[in-house]
Amino acid sequence: MGIFQTTFQLKERARGFHLITDEIELALPEIQNCQAGILNLFIQHTSASLAINENADPSVRVDLESTLNRIVPENQPHFTHTYEGPDDMPAHIKAAILGASINLPITNGRLNLGLWQGIYLCEHRNQGGPRNIVASLYS
Amino acid sequence: MGIFQTTFQLKERARGFHLITDEIELALPEIQNCQAGILNLFIQHTSASLAINENADPSVRVDLESTLNRIVPENQPHFTHTYEGPDDMPAHIKAAILGASINLPITNGRLNLGLWQGIYLCEHRNQGGPRNIVASLYS
Amino acid sequence: MGIFQTTFQLKERARGFHLITDEIELALPEIQNCQAGILNLFIQHTSASLAINENADPSVRVDLESTLNRIVPENQPHFTHTYEGPDDMPAHIKAAILGASINLPITNGRLNLGLWQGIYLCEHRNQGGPRNIVASLYS
Repeated sequence: MGIFQTTFQLKERARGFHLITDEIELALPEIQNCQAGILNLFIQHTSASLAINENADPSVRVDLESTLNRIVPENQPHFTHTYEGPDDMPAHIKAAILGASINLPITNGRLNLGLWQGIYLCEHRNQGGPRNIVASLYS
Repeated sequence: MGIFQTTFQLKERARGFHLITDEIELALPEIQNCQAGILNLFIQHTSASLAINENADPSVRVDLESTLNRIVPENQPHFTHTYEGPDDMPAHIKAAILGASINLPITNGRLNLGLWQGIYLCEHRNQGGPRNIVASLYS
Repeated sequence: MGIFQTTFQLKERARGFHLITDEIELALPEIQNCQAGILNLFIQHTSASLAINENADPSVRVDLESTLNRIVPENQPHFTHTYEGPDDMPAHIKAAILGASINLPITNGRLNLGLWQGIYLCEHRNQGGPRNIVASLYS
């Protein structure tokens, strides 16, 4: 019982939605020692998000990227925050919509996800760089 | 002090937004023994969501469904993930936007919600089937 | 170890996105005594949200407000929940999209946010009044 906390970095990825479940499990072997708990993953950035979505067909990730780009288009005439490039302000808006952190149940030493669920890094910038994650596991 | 964790199933519901506060309280009598804590509810699916919204006028739930359908329309020409039906890819996108889990404070043996707040099951599929919830109560 | 829970009120603010990190830290001096934990902030309302986004340039907050107003416009002809004014139903939809609560890691007595991250109160009503927050800090 108690809280375990650590920070790690996800390597730079292209703009889009990326399945990172395996990478999270590798970074957090402590999950295997947890019988019942919650894992909070928090991304320390305002232009990338964490989400949970389908772990199977990669076309879901393609369509998430293209549809979010339609919901929050670049170069909207009303934008005032434009000096960091056309992908910047849409990235902040997508980050607000999708969220900076997710909570995942841990049961019997494993992520207790549904059969079709995986963890996504949602990279909203064209060149976002590596992304820092704070992981907090409480049990 | 510590964590209590259990899994239960919500019966199949029609596509739309459904108020399930009473059902959650019935499924989790352990809430009544918790003086101060947090309840995490996690839905193990990628085409349905949990959310918190108004518990009074049902017209809010009608308008949430119709408006989300406008923000994420079916049959968009750019969709590539189409073989599970026209409601499938929009369901994944809505699930990403609304989220798979919610955290609720527990105080003095009760959900510490605002006067007008209730828990919603957001069913994004036409025939989504029963939905599994992992509940984790930590105090 | 254990949970600390308290409730406080944010003063009424104009419709829009507001940086409240300093106010949260002032309301919760207990953060300083926490070596490793998670802070859950929960807003007890269905027409305002909490979010994490850029803490520097105020133009990000201006563009978030104007863009959310475009994603969820007022006076949509299909709205049925209209008797509380044109800003009411859009406020419920924005609250569902952005969410009622956020989780923040606490490390070494401080909010462990990224360099550019701050806490936002997202006020979706024209005259929302003061807003109640339930804070739960577990460590």
